[in-house]
Amino acid sequence: MTTTAPSLAHLVAPQLLEVDQLFAAELASDLPNVNQLVTHVAKFRGKMLRPMLVLLSGLAACETVDARLTPDHTTLATVVEMVHMATLVHDDILDGAEIRRRGATINHLHGNEAAVLLGDYLISHAYHLCSSLDSASGQAASRLIAHTTNVVCEGELTQNFNRKNWKMDEKTYYLIIYRKTAALTEACCKLGALFSTAKPEFIHALATFGKQIGLAFQIVDDILDICGQQKTVGKSLGTDIEKGKLTLPMIHFLKTAAPQHRDLLIGLLESHEHDRVERVRQLLAPSSSIVYAKRQAELRIDEAITALRVLPPSDARNALMEAAHYVTSREK
Amino acid sequence: MTTTAPSLAHLVAPQLLEVDQLFAAELASDLPNVNQLVTHVAKFRGKMLRPMLVLLSGLAACETVDARLTPDHTTLATVVEMVHMATLVHDDILDGAEIRRRGATINHLHGNEAAVLLGDYLISHAYHLCSSLDSASGQAASRLIAHTTNVVCEGELTQNFNRKNWKMDEKTYYLIIYRKTAALTEACCKLGALFSTAKPEFIHALATFGKQIGLAFQIVDDILDICGQQKTVGKSLGTDIEKGKLTLPMIHFLKTAAPQHRDLLIGLLESHEHDRVERVRQLLAPSSSIVYAKRQAELRIDEAITALRVLPPSDARNALMEAAHYVTSREK
Repeated sequence: MTTTAPSLAHLVAPQLLEVDQLFAAELASDLPNVNQLVTHVAKFRGKMLRPMLVLLSGLAACETVDARLTPDHTTLATVVEMVHMATLVHDDILDGAEIRRRGATINHLHGNEAAVLLGDYLISHAYHLCSSLDSASGQAASRLIAHTTNVVCEGELTQNFNRKNWKMDEKTYYLIIYRKTAALTEACCKLGALFSTAKPEFIHALATFGKQIGLAFQIVDDILDICGQQKTVGKSLGTDIEKGKLTLPMIHFLKTAAPQHRDLLIGLLESHEHDRVERVRQLLAPSSSIVYAKRQAELRIDEAITALRVLPPSDARNALMEAAHYVTSREK
Repeated sequence: MTTTAPSLAHLVAPQLLEVDQLFAAELASDLPNVNQLVTHVAKFRGKMLRPMLVLLSGLAACETVDARLTPDHTTLATVVEMVHMATLVHDDILDGAEIRRRGATINHLHGNEAAVLLGDYLISHAYHLCSSLDSASGQAASRLIAHTTNVVCEGELTQNFNRKNWKMDEKTYYLIIYRKTAALTEACCKLGALFSTAKPEFIHALATFGKQIGLAFQIVDDILDICGQQKTVGKSLGTDIEKGKLTLPMIHFLKTAAPQHRDLLIGLLESHEHDRVERVRQLLAPSSSIVYAKRQAELRIDEAITALRVLPPSDARNALMEAAHYVTSREK
């Protein structure tokens, strides 16, 4: 049971259904206890943003109006969803999160050990499915996916390394969020395009679109971690604060706020008080640093939409633009 | 700095050196903190058993005496070493191990979070390197590697699921050790052969060899966890007991020992006494269950060596036989 962003999905609805089916079929095991975990993880599948990016990019890159998506697009859309789910499962270990999409996380329910293994199982199946594509472009897709996961790991490692580094700057923040989030959305759009067209300018335009909305998506995610309501967002919030991960609003606040407010924030981030997370959220939520971070996300969306102008007008291009606007307006 | 099993490696010494270099080059990052972790993991590289299996199988499968290993063999040998290292790093989280090859494990030194990510980084680079092989056989290798990691994950998940299941039988034990260990050694030998010959009987013989020595290797590993000296073995011992993982000697003991000894073992396995691990080891080490388990490992080695008879006599075939004997005689 998955919910997609409103009204964006109708163009690729049949393919999204196939993604759902392929996802389940590929992960099925002959071992009952393995299936039990896989079934649980399928329950907190989300907005299917990444499969949609593959499919809509595939459509938007078509050079003729009657061109269609191929079965390879569906396969790739399933692969990126598996990669994404794997990163979620391992992320929840890193964050010590207890709630994901209104359900208990795997680590909370079955322990960190099962979560490590389930993430490994998902990523392994992603590569396996990707290597089922034949032809030279299949090998190219495998290489791009593996390159992307290399970059995602680097982003996560850098983020982990910079925990409690209160001097972290915006440049490092963008390096981290590009690698941990935007590299995958960039790859989604690029893969969709690669399997529809050979035109470098179309492929480049969609890759840029994917990268920019990935950056915007992560900035908004980081804002929601501070300003969102757990009931609406449906996952543990305040984890960035809890884990000492500086995000754009915090970096801006530490750079621009009055010294006594800056000291207050660092004091709270370093304290072990039980209500410290809530107090950080109360300090930051009404600040101009949230306004600043929102503006940065909007600028990325503008860049994403500008990149799409190279493509011929189409329903798919419109849907991608709508997806871009959804990223900054979402409340979950 | 790696140490290989005595005298087995000289036939493939130049290629093993290339594996070392390719391993380091592939994992190098433009981010210093990522390199710091990678350097640490390289320190506890081990016997290079799996790369050797790829390379020696590649040589042993050659149909003419003057045939040579190809650069693809070196690439594949590096890929399997990365896969193996990834499983070690994640295994150490599952086991809560503190020592690996006489060095502190990544999880002990940098926390579970870095260990999760480093394992992901290693496996991602393994797939990336594998997808650099071009041609149809490259895609076939990617698929075999990914299939193998699927199976390894299933083995680990099944093992995790069966913790503290004191009724676990031999059949389940073999299912687990085939999937978590022998599937990879089987793939090593099969891959080496696939890139040297098209003869199905050679490929099958080497796959069987790899599978059987993998099973033997794991049985011996499980015996060492009970009977080994930490100083000699160079990694945390008693972790199977600590984590409630039944292995062949324990399964045999629970099936054959007198009721009071069986109750004593279960009592110790379930207790929280600080010396319970040492007491289990003292109970099992002199028992006939160790003799039984050793015999089972030897039977696997016999099967492995029998399988090789299909191949033409060669130095490489002799080296593989020597490797098989080394598995059961090793003390670390």
